[in-house]
Amino acid sequence: MRYDKSQSHVQLERNASQVPSVLAFNQTSPDANRFGESFRILFRWRGSIYKFIWKHVLVYYFLFYLLSILHGLLDIERKKTFEALAKYCLKNTNSINLMLMLTFFTTTAMQRLFSIQIMIPGTAKVITFFIMSLKPNMPEGPIIVEQFARWTVLAWILTFRVVCKPLRKMFPDMISLQVAGIIREKERCILERVETEGNKTPRALIVIDWMLLLLKETAIHNRFTEKSNHLKVLDIVMAFKKNCGNIIKFATKNIPYALIQAAIIVVYVYGLVTLMARNFEEAGNSGFLEGIVNYFPVIPSLQFFIFLIWLNFGRTAVNPFGTDDDDIDVKLLFDTHVQDSFRLASLYAQDLEHVFGAMPQ
Amino acid sequence: MRYDKSQSHVQLERNASQVPSVLAFNQTSPDANRFGESFRILFRWRGSIYKFIWKHVLVYYFLFYLLSILHGLLDIERKKTFEALAKYCLKNTNSINLMLMLTFFTTTAMQRLFSIQIMIPGTAKVITFFIMSLKPNMPEGPIIVEQFARWTVLAWILTFRVVCKPLRKMFPDMISLQVAGIIREKERCILERVETEGNKTPRALIVIDWMLLLLKETAIHNRFTEKSNHLKVLDIVMAFKKNCGNIIKFATKNIPYALIQAAIIVVYVYGLVTLMARNFEEAGNSGFLEGIVNYFPVIPSLQFFIFLIWLNFGRTAVNPFGTDDDDIDVKLLFDTHVQDSFRLASLYAQDLEHVFGAMPQ
Amino acid sequence: MRYDKSQSHVQLERNASQVPSVLAFNQTSPDANRFGESFRILFRWRGSIYKFIWKHVLVYYFLFYLLSILHGLLDIERKKTFEALAKYCLKNTNSINLMLMLTFFTTTAMQRLFSIQIMIPGTAKVITFFIMSLKPNMPEGPIIVEQFARWTVLAWILTFRVVCKPLRKMFPDMISLQVAGIIREKERCILERVETEGNKTPRALIVIDWMLLLLKETAIHNRFTEKSNHLKVLDIVMAFKKNCGNIIKFATKNIPYALIQAAIIVVYVYGLVTLMARNFEEAGNSGFLEGIVNYFPVIPSLQFFIFLIWLNFGRTAVNPFGTDDDDIDVKLLFDTHVQDSFRLASLYAQDLEHVFGAMPQ
Amino acid sequence: MRYDKSQSHVQLERNASQVPSVLAFNQTSPDANRFGESFRILFRWRGSIYKFIWKHVLVYYFLFYLLSILHGLLDIERKKTFEALAKYCLKNTNSINLMLMLTFFTTTAMQRLFSIQIMIPGTAKVITFFIMSLKPNMPEGPIIVEQFARWTVLAWILTFRVVCKPLRKMFPDMISLQVAGIIREKERCILERVETEGNKTPRALIVIDWMLLLLKETAIHNRFTEKSNHLKVLDIVMAFKKNCGNIIKFATKNIPYALIQAAIIVVYVYGLVTLMARNFEEAGNSGFLEGIVNYFPVIPSLQFFIFLIWLNFGRTAVNPFGTDDDDIDVKLLFDTHVQDSFRLASLYAQDLEHVFGAMPQ
Amino acid sequence: MRYDKSQSHVQLERNASQVPSVLAFNQTSPDANRFGESFRILFRWRGSIYKFIWKHVLVYYFLFYLLSILHGLLDIERKKTFEALAKYCLKNTNSINLMLMLTFFTTTAMQRLFSIQIMIPGTAKVITFFIMSLKPNMPEGPIIVEQFARWTVLAWILTFRVVCKPLRKMFPDMISLQVAGIIREKERCILERVETEGNKTPRALIVIDWMLLLLKETAIHNRFTEKSNHLKVLDIVMAFKKNCGNIIKFATKNIPYALIQAAIIVVYVYGLVTLMARNFEEAGNSGFLEGIVNYFPVIPSLQFFIFLIWLNFGRTAVNPFGTDDDDIDVKLLFDTHVQDSFRLASLYAQDLEHVFGAMPQ
Repeated sequence: MRYDKSQSHVQLERNASQVPSVLAFNQTSPDANRFGESFRILFRWRGSIYKFIWKHVLVYYFLFYLLSILHGLLDIERKKTFEALAKYCLKNTNSINLMLMLTFFTTTAMQRLFSIQIMIPGTAKVITFFIMSLKPNMPEGPIIVEQFARWTVLAWILTFRVVCKPLRKMFPDMISLQVAGIIREKERCILERVETEGNKTPRALIVIDWMLLLLKETAIHNRFTEKSNHLKVLDIVMAFKKNCGNIIKFATKNIPYALIQAAIIVVYVYGLVTLMARNFEEAGNSGFLEGIVNYFPVIPSLQFFIFLIWLNFGRTAVNPFGTDDDDIDVKLLFDTHVQDSFRLASLYAQDLEHVFGAMPQ
Repeated sequence: MRYDKSQSHVQLERNASQVPSVLAFNQTSPDANRFGESFRILFRWRGSIYKFIWKHVLVYYFLFYLLSILHGLLDIERKKTFEALAKYCLKNTNSINLMLMLTFFTTTAMQRLFSIQIMIPGTAKVITFFIMSLKPNMPEGPIIVEQFARWTVLAWILTFRVVCKPLRKMFPDMISLQVAGIIREKERCILERVETEGNKTPRALIVIDWMLLLLKETAIHNRFTEKSNHLKVLDIVMAFKKNCGNIIKFATKNIPYALIQAAIIVVYVYGLVTLMARNFEEAGNSGFLEGIVNYFPVIPSLQFFIFLIWLNFGRTAVNPFGTDDDDIDVKLLFDTHVQDSFRLASLYAQDLEHVFGAMPQ
Repeated sequence: MRYDKSQSHVQLERNASQVPSVLAFNQTSPDANRFGESFRILFRWRGSIYKFIWKHVLVYYFLFYLLSILHGLLDIERKKTFEALAKYCLKNTNSINLMLMLTFFTTTAMQRLFSIQIMIPGTAKVITFFIMSLKPNMPEGPIIVEQFARWTVLAWILTFRVVCKPLRKMFPDMISLQVAGIIREKERCILERVETEGNKTPRALIVIDWMLLLLKETAIHNRFTEKSNHLKVLDIVMAFKKNCGNIIKFATKNIPYALIQAAIIVVYVYGLVTLMARNFEEAGNSGFLEGIVNYFPVIPSLQFFIFLIWLNFGRTAVNPFGTDDDDIDVKLLFDTHVQDSFRLASLYAQDLEHVFGAMPQ
Repeated sequence: MRYDKSQSHVQLERNASQVPSVLAFNQTSPDANRFGESFRILFRWRGSIYKFIWKHVLVYYFLFYLLSILHGLLDIERKKTFEALAKYCLKNTNSINLMLMLTFFTTTAMQRLFSIQIMIPGTAKVITFFIMSLKPNMPEGPIIVEQFARWTVLAWILTFRVVCKPLRKMFPDMISLQVAGIIREKERCILERVETEGNKTPRALIVIDWMLLLLKETAIHNRFTEKSNHLKVLDIVMAFKKNCGNIIKFATKNIPYALIQAAIIVVYVYGLVTLMARNFEEAGNSGFLEGIVNYFPVIPSLQFFIFLIWLNFGRTAVNPFGTDDDDIDVKLLFDTHVQDSFRLASLYAQDLEHVFGAMPQ
Repeated sequence: MRYDKSQSHVQLERNASQVPSVLAFNQTSPDANRFGESFRILFRWRGSIYKFIWKHVLVYYFLFYLLSILHGLLDIERKKTFEALAKYCLKNTNSINLMLMLTFFTTTAMQRLFSIQIMIPGTAKVITFFIMSLKPNMPEGPIIVEQFARWTVLAWILTFRVVCKPLRKMFPDMISLQVAGIIREKERCILERVETEGNKTPRALIVIDWMLLLLKETAIHNRFTEKSNHLKVLDIVMAFKKNCGNIIKFATKNIPYALIQAAIIVVYVYGLVTLMARNFEEAGNSGFLEGIVNYFPVIPSLQFFIFLIWLNFGRTAVNPFGTDDDDIDVKLLFDTHVQDSFRLASLYAQDLEHVFGAMPQ
């Protein structure tokens, strides 16, 4: 009848070999003024720009060289037309002012991301407050505490299932949650009935209703140390509920689609134009320079790749709960919340003597 | 005498076939690094840039080709004048620095939008706190709770009727609210009298006054579990009131009209000038290029369409309660709040046993 | 002895014919995607750009045509000098990068404005909390409540008199406040003495001191329902006081004067230079184009007018309590606060039965 | 034994002739749409740009004309070299993109300034809460209140002495504080000992410790009206402490030095280059234009002066507690806080009858 | 058994010779309008731009002159190719629009930095609230207080060890913390076991759990002055916990790596291109100018160095807990927190008489 620690423990196992503080430490950013570290940054693969743009670079240069080879094969008349077109494209690339638009898009998306990062609902505060507001050493205490903790985690999961594809894959339906030991038979039935009956209440809200009822019952049966604790814990539950709602609002009422489309179209059109844009005039009659213009287009294409990366930052920030490298790892977060709920629930029955033996008091 | 659940339920029916979590899930933004998803984004119609600009594109290119055809029909002398004018326009388009102005306009409008999104008043917190602060199992409890919940929703509606055209259409007068079962006869009379008597108090404030009186009565009749609950609930009611006020402030004391006008005028003038602007010089004597200049003006016009989209984002953000695709769906919000108020009001009389049968305690 | 409802009611009369929700509704911004509304926006006069710039436009074009006519009258030698000067000016206009500076100025000013808009002190919360924290049905209750409400409004007025010219004109001295029924004889004497005696305490603080003393007395005479209400109401009074202080801080410690001066000078110098700047070269030998250059300088001057509007937004935002079209209407706000204070004060003696007749409980 | 009102009153005297509301009113910003006011703004000297840049203008034009005269004296060969150099400089000035960098610097500095303006610790809230939380009419009350108020002001001064040069000059050591009647003999000894003994605790913290001890004593001797007041007042004292800490953090952990250096260097280098930059080519063979180029370099230098002003805004905002015209007047603030602490402390012993005579209750 | 004041005192000694207020005062920024100070700023070395870029400057000019010398040695044909290449590079440098990208990077990084600066968890508030909420003069009081204070500091250290390399070096393992007297034998064992057993709970959380248990025990043994203090202190402990979590989130979920990489690559590519970019055309046939172009490339390289400094600001801001000059000095912070915890813990047993002798009450 208790939520199966063993089972979910198995699932947690896979990451257990990593020591958390070392892990976190390795994720901190490097110093700015170390020469060596500059290079270490440049040669990192995971989450790097190389990983993102290498396909684009290949396609781009393939097309670019194709055009260059074509240019070499043309007769003089057509060469002129080619070069005129190249010049025309070059002129036009300069007149497109993309940077500001992309900066706006990326800045908007990133600001939303940063603001959501601090709004992500946490289960620890709710659970801790509930535990600490109870009378100690009640016989029914551990059961109530466990139930409350489990429901908090459940509300969290039901919220993130809505916005996070990986979590949705992990728990495709209510049965999978029961298998993972997070909900019980009866709860599953109720939650399943909700959606099949055309009830539009989000499931997370149903679970939060249960939490509210549990709070009420705790108050009625006089299990709080003080009567006023009831509203205090309620306050924290409502804040938790609001944060859950914010996550869904954030994910569904996002940056306008049209903005993403506009940014994508404009960047790729720009890329296509730069493919053709070549500065033959500057090359003049110097064969050496013409070679550079035709075969080492580093600088003209650099601008395009900057735009591409820019665009990518923005798009990654638009949906931070996906599977991109820089996305928030919701699965890991889930593991942490489950584990924390166990640990905190166990605090109810613990005291310092359990931890340290007899205290020096 | 109770508020007619059946009636408003009928109104809610139309959306009932949609399962909320699937719906929300489909509204989340796509990942950045999936190749296929980039295309899926580009080909979406709803809320897309295509939907917005296709009319403009048609008109623009119609006019553009008209001018191009005109150019073909001119004699050499007039062709020269035409080309001189085209060059003059081209030069001038480059010297207009719109991007920064538009970015300012759009950024300002969007920031206001984001900030209002988190200020939208919610009814759930007020109702939950009121219910939880009452003594349980009072015989008169359900009636009080229902009344308070209904008034909260009513204050919400009266607030949004002021700023949201669709909701105003849905409830054009107080009678329509009575028909929908949201207010009762007597309340309607009072609310109608308010405006006809030249009383300048917004109706929402009148309703909030009723809520305050109900709070006072609850306190006097000693129906709170603790005396101090009175001020706690009051605090939350005042926050609700403030948010209602903020919504109206936001909608009526908005971005200055002149700013919107300036942005519109400047973008369309720019569009008119680019219509004429053609780079015949670059085309030189290459007929091929002249054709491109005259009939494939993708790049020169791209800038204009970027500005147009930019402008549109800003204007959509200026009034988020309207009928634009990316606007906040106030009607849906209304349904949700009504439904929530039912569900929460029912919590007063419920306990966990009702939900799960005998609890394992 | 009570504050004269009749008198101030007369003052409120003038706006009474306007139904508030219709009024507010008409002030909401239009939708973005309606074709007709775009035009409605463009043809609005109140608060429009036309209203602001028409004088500037007239003066500008008068000077511009004067120079054009002068150019026509010159002999060839001087014409050349004129044209050289025109070209010189043209080059220089392009090299002045004003947009960013103006954007900075306007953004800074507008952000301050938006942040002050949500900090404007309100009287309703203070009064409501005070009323609700009192024991009900005390015989002396209505008098205390009325006094507290009146003092709150008085502190509000004394604060805004400092920053808002229209309100200062409405209440040039303490006598005028007494005539309007907002202060009583004795209070007026004390407030007048404050400034004549060289006491540097702002009058609003004196009034807030009275409110604090009234709170203390209420606590001593045990008129709060609970002892702890004293500090709760105190907290809200202190927040009110802080907001009053912020308004004065905002208005007196504003955008640096030098910044406003710099923006004004730069924009007008730019305007003077564009007056002379003409692109005769482009016109070449085409008389048609020369005519355009000389007599339809829409595009060159457009930039100047954009700057001018930009500047104006910034300057309007710098002082939002003045008489500009987009300024906050402090007088209307004052009326609202007076009216609210009446309504709220009356809540003390009211109960729901008064409003609805016998309640169904 | 009491803190010498007379003495510090003498110090306050010098500003006493100014009526605060008139003073504040004169500091509000002018309206945007008054023609006359535009001019009034331009001709103000105090805090104006003229005051800041007139020295720079003199030096700049002196050097500029020196170079112009030099140019006139050169032979043709050297003239050419001079003009080539001038052109080279001109080209280069255009390629330096300073505006964005300066905008970043100034925006960053100003945002920090605005955010610090609302974090400036105030003494009024702490003192008021302490007074109001005490039991009324205790014989020892006035002494405790006075001590607490004095210590609050003292902590405030010790904080601002750290960051504000003018205040440090006013109170160079602890003796000067004793002379001003703000600390007593014994307190001075303790505070002096702190620094000489190598104790690294900031003095302000020591004083706040005293305040905490006083709170504890008040609680132990049961002088609060309610026990829970202890933690409430503590909360406000801790907020005051945090704000004090923020001020010091702000002033010492500021904009990076390197950023200020970079901005200064870049602007002055730009100025040096524009000195030499002249557009002789445009002047062509028109002697009239050459004169303008050589002797009325308004436009080329305008850009430099804009940068200079820009830079100055940023630098002023970096250290808002200094002696610049737009800096926060900490001395005035100090006077206000001292005066407020007197007034508030006197509230303990006052009641409304003292103020108004017999109340109508 | 107590935490060894002597030991950690030795460690603190090294900084003891610095008087804190003088130190802080010297770190405040200079005024803007003092001529002398402008120069003082420019000639400061610590934290200056010189310190950062001198190596880059040396390498840059070495390479630049190498190329210049090479140019001198070439025959005419190759000189032409060289000059064509130089011109080609010059053109391309102008078309790269880096400033906006760098501004975005640096602004984003700095905003995160400023926001983290105000979120840094402090130990003082937690400890003070715990002490003040206890019943005074309990015999076991000092022991509990010391334990709570020590654990707070311990949680702080364990948090910062994760993100701050210097602190990690200072305390490489749990033993070193025991040697420093911050943890005791038994606690060390438990903390060491956590990571070796594959428990993924961060150590700081374990310590905070102890604090929660201690709170619970304090409540059970009725050691709080009021029952409600329990939840109040809990609230503050949870805020402390949240801030600890934010620090780790900030440091590990930072600016995307790819963004840093992109910024670095782009700036250095720009630098390489400017190395070759020379404006020989402008120099024309003037040998004097050619010399300047070849040997005094101040202005072309200036832009590169601005970019480099820009980049550096951003990179420093990305990791504010490192060893850069402008980084937050976590070690100093640590010393302060340890010292504060001693001082505050001692407040429990102190009263004002201890400090001042007999009080005048």
